[in-house]
Amino acid sequence: VNGAAAIAGSLRAHGVGLCFANPGTSELHLVEAFESTPGLRSVLCLFEGVATGAAGGFGRMGGVPAATLLHQGAGLANGMANLHNAGRAASPVVTVVGDGATSHAGLGAPLESDVAALAAPMSRWVRTAGSAATAGSDTAAAVSAARRAPGPVTLVVPADVAWSEGGVVCPPGSAPDVAASVPAGRVEAIARSLRERPGAALLVGGGALRGPGLAAAARLARVAGLTVLAEAFPARLEQGAGVPAVERLSGDPGRARGRLTGIDRLILAGARAPVAAFAQPGTPGALTAPGCVIEALAAPGEDATAALQGLAELLAPGVRARPANPVATTAWAPGSALDAATAVQVVAAALPEGAILVDESNSSGAALPAATAAAAPHDLLAVCGFAIGEGLPLSIGAALASPGRPIVCLESDGSAMYTLSALWTQAREGLDITTVVLDNGGYSILRRESRRTLGAGTPTAGSPLFDLGGPRLDFAALGAGLGVPSARAATAAELDLQLKRALAEPGPHLVVVSLPSL
Amino acid sequence: VNGAAAIAGSLRAHGVGLCFANPGTSELHLVEAFESTPGLRSVLCLFEGVATGAAGGFGRMGGVPAATLLHQGAGLANGMANLHNAGRAASPVVTVVGDGATSHAGLGAPLESDVAALAAPMSRWVRTAGSAATAGSDTAAAVSAARRAPGPVTLVVPADVAWSEGGVVCPPGSAPDVAASVPAGRVEAIARSLRERPGAALLVGGGALRGPGLAAAARLARVAGLTVLAEAFPARLEQGAGVPAVERLSGDPGRARGRLTGIDRLILAGARAPVAAFAQPGTPGALTAPGCVIEALAAPGEDATAALQGLAELLAPGVRARPANPVATTAWAPGSALDAATAVQVVAAALPEGAILVDESNSSGAALPAATAAAAPHDLLAVCGFAIGEGLPLSIGAALASPGRPIVCLESDGSAMYTLSALWTQAREGLDITTVVLDNGGYSILRRESRRTLGAGTPTAGSPLFDLGGPRLDFAALGAGLGVPSARAATAAELDLQLKRALAEPGPHLVVVSLPSL
Repeated sequence: VNGAAAIAGSLRAHGVGLCFANPGTSELHLVEAFESTPGLRSVLCLFEGVATGAAGGFGRMGGVPAATLLHQGAGLANGMANLHNAGRAASPVVTVVGDGATSHAGLGAPLESDVAALAAPMSRWVRTAGSAATAGSDTAAAVSAARRAPGPVTLVVPADVAWSEGGVVCPPGSAPDVAASVPAGRVEAIARSLRERPGAALLVGGGALRGPGLAAAARLARVAGLTVLAEAFPARLEQGAGVPAVERLSGDPGRARGRLTGIDRLILAGARAPVAAFAQPGTPGALTAPGCVIEALAAPGEDATAALQGLAELLAPGVRARPANPVATTAWAPGSALDAATAVQVVAAALPEGAILVDESNSSGAALPAATAAAAPHDLLAVCGFAIGEGLPLSIGAALASPGRPIVCLESDGSAMYTLSALWTQAREGLDITTVVLDNGGYSILRRESRRTLGAGTPTAGSPLFDLGGPRLDFAALGAGLGVPSARAATAAELDLQLKRALAEPGPHLVVVSLPSL
Repeated sequence: VNGAAAIAGSLRAHGVGLCFANPGTSELHLVEAFESTPGLRSVLCLFEGVATGAAGGFGRMGGVPAATLLHQGAGLANGMANLHNAGRAASPVVTVVGDGATSHAGLGAPLESDVAALAAPMSRWVRTAGSAATAGSDTAAAVSAARRAPGPVTLVVPADVAWSEGGVVCPPGSAPDVAASVPAGRVEAIARSLRERPGAALLVGGGALRGPGLAAAARLARVAGLTVLAEAFPARLEQGAGVPAVERLSGDPGRARGRLTGIDRLILAGARAPVAAFAQPGTPGALTAPGCVIEALAAPGEDATAALQGLAELLAPGVRARPANPVATTAWAPGSALDAATAVQVVAAALPEGAILVDESNSSGAALPAATAAAAPHDLLAVCGFAIGEGLPLSIGAALASPGRPIVCLESDGSAMYTLSALWTQAREGLDITTVVLDNGGYSILRRESRRTLGAGTPTAGSPLFDLGGPRLDFAALGAGLGVPSARAATAAELDLQLKRALAEPGPHLVVVSLPSL
């Protein structure tokens, strides 16, 4: 057993069955080992950001991490934006990076770089496998760290560690790592203080945005004097008809700030304190009201669901959640013009039960929260880390983690161009992913933000740097070139028809919606 | 004048006139300033790796750095593979990264990361602009560092540094930075030792691979007992009919090792010591013979051309270079089948005088050095850093640095997929770039290397991870979708015809050559 086989075997032994790979010459022994380890399947991606984004999607939906296999420092760098996103989504990802042989280090080979230093800013845990003998236990430690964080971890594997004999597969550990329990005393103290001093808000996020956590949150929403909100950009939010409804904080910083006005105490349950994604002159970064006291019922990595259930037992014993969202309704009129709001309404109405909706609609998605709240029950995956180019790969991982569940991806024109080759992997794997490209011919979010930040009349809002119109990207041609059947929709009824066709046929599809510029 | 305007003005004052931009919300004030600074033009790229690759091409051909404008840590990460390549090519690039406001730091905004730490591994120089007052001088220091290194440098600009008033444009310095002179004593000592002890080899690289350096090298090649070689992967090599010919070391490690056998002393003139790009079990990394003594006539960053000229005066006074390469000839037969060797021969024969040939042909390019040696005189740009995905963006920068010179880019199928949207920028800018995609439907280099490394019969050579055939990428559709007129060539004569058409028409073109799998 060489080091590579010890790594592959240890991944498998610790629950990792899938690898998104974009290997190079330093990884040949790893490729050999990954391909010959039963139960470990590798999926080829044509760009590292596709591999890491797909692994992020798998981690969100699969509960166990996927691996990625990347090539030296430059390959890792290409994958780091979506590792950043995985970190913000608390999605476990085990990245294995092949490096030059230790005997080669310092010779100045063309790809030589400090891989561990590169990995550090976007990894929760980094280790370089020092020998074939420890490669298996290093791998087990990596999987454990990814699950415990949870988030992306990086194991650097020098080529000679991979090819040397003396590897040992690390046997499976005892129980898988789970979120840490919140001490009962903390839950009781918060319950007591909320009884004594109402007027607080509870912000729910992370793993608490699924059925059990939402049910507890919806019960707490009936407690007088307690406002219950869900975080704006969830890693995985169950919603739709029949799912307990919790008001979602707006992703628009102005609206979120308005909603949080007058709240002088915010209790976090698996969520982060809400801040504006981008600073503006003269505007504070925090979205909470000045002086608002922020405390944690459950910090990220702690079991927010159990904590919410405990809090609900203390504050709302016997109370039942408000009726869940009503049955799904179709919210668009057949004669509607196809603007962004209508497009997302058509998509929401067409969502099959059990769908996974990947949302990278950005500036086109303002109507999405309202449109999907009463859609058929589904999971919503947002871009938690704001590094664009996550949606198409995220869909791959979500699909592979959730066989039988249809994936619908709302993608923006600008964002689609960072990891477009994800469509090829979707085609290669025959994944049931329907991508709707909302093409408004520009970086509309930059146009909008420049008006906000620089003033309504700023010439910068019309900057050619925000214009994707010359030449206009032809996403239907691009999709077809990558092997995905692609169509255009010019009206709401056409979009509805194309979506239904796409959802009825196996394999990936792309539907392009041309929207007016913002 | 705010900090952003001080940065833009200082870039311009220090000779930077071009910026490859993929901005985000943190860079709005920088966009405003860049767009309103006369003489500073910004070119939009749809992915950061396109921006950095284009800047690398500009630096190689333009002599002065271009800037890039990127968005926070995730955006920088996307651009780092081609910054790595720029570093290996000693191409000056000034990357400006917008970051969150300093007042925002530590709040946990979605894109928060340690940008300076991220930048360090792929930058020769990193600084975070601390205030609007120093932003101009920080910018001047960045340009100076990029020229002096030469290579990529990174200036991190917090949003509030950009928007705050109190900026000062840093006035132009005295002379531009140039390569450091090699002390005359070192040249004389090497000349003396070469007279006393012949049998050495001289490896020429960097800036010495242009006319004057090559002329001196070709004179030295006539000195008895001195072998003169050019480095295998040049940042910019002048070659073709009329250019003094210097034998180029093979890019194949086995051949290079063979060529260096028996050479016990290697003198570097602007080149790095030759090493195998990738380690193999039981094979040393250095390509030089065991015990070979390596010394530097001119280290990277020193003026290798002048040093070679000095050495030629001492060792070969009055000697003239061997006759330069003969007049270009057409090396392919019209009836040839279109394999990789024929394809590059057709391209070499079609090269117009003064063309710039960007070579990312990888496994399909074995015949290129021979085919181009006697082509019409041109510059050849190789991928010095081995991070694939450089060719298409490199072509953009080379075109913008060299108005009136046609660009021909030999691109591989696998490599093209990392930065494909470069084609869109080529179309938007109307650049005279003819891209020939050599599509053999796989990562052939990995197939070949797995046979070498794992053994001839290894099943890994047939790994699906090396196969781009299911589905086959349709590069003509992809090119068209990005706004570039695209055609397919099935025979040598068709390729010749398509090339001549593409070269005769303004603007970018794409020609796809389907090759047999390796």
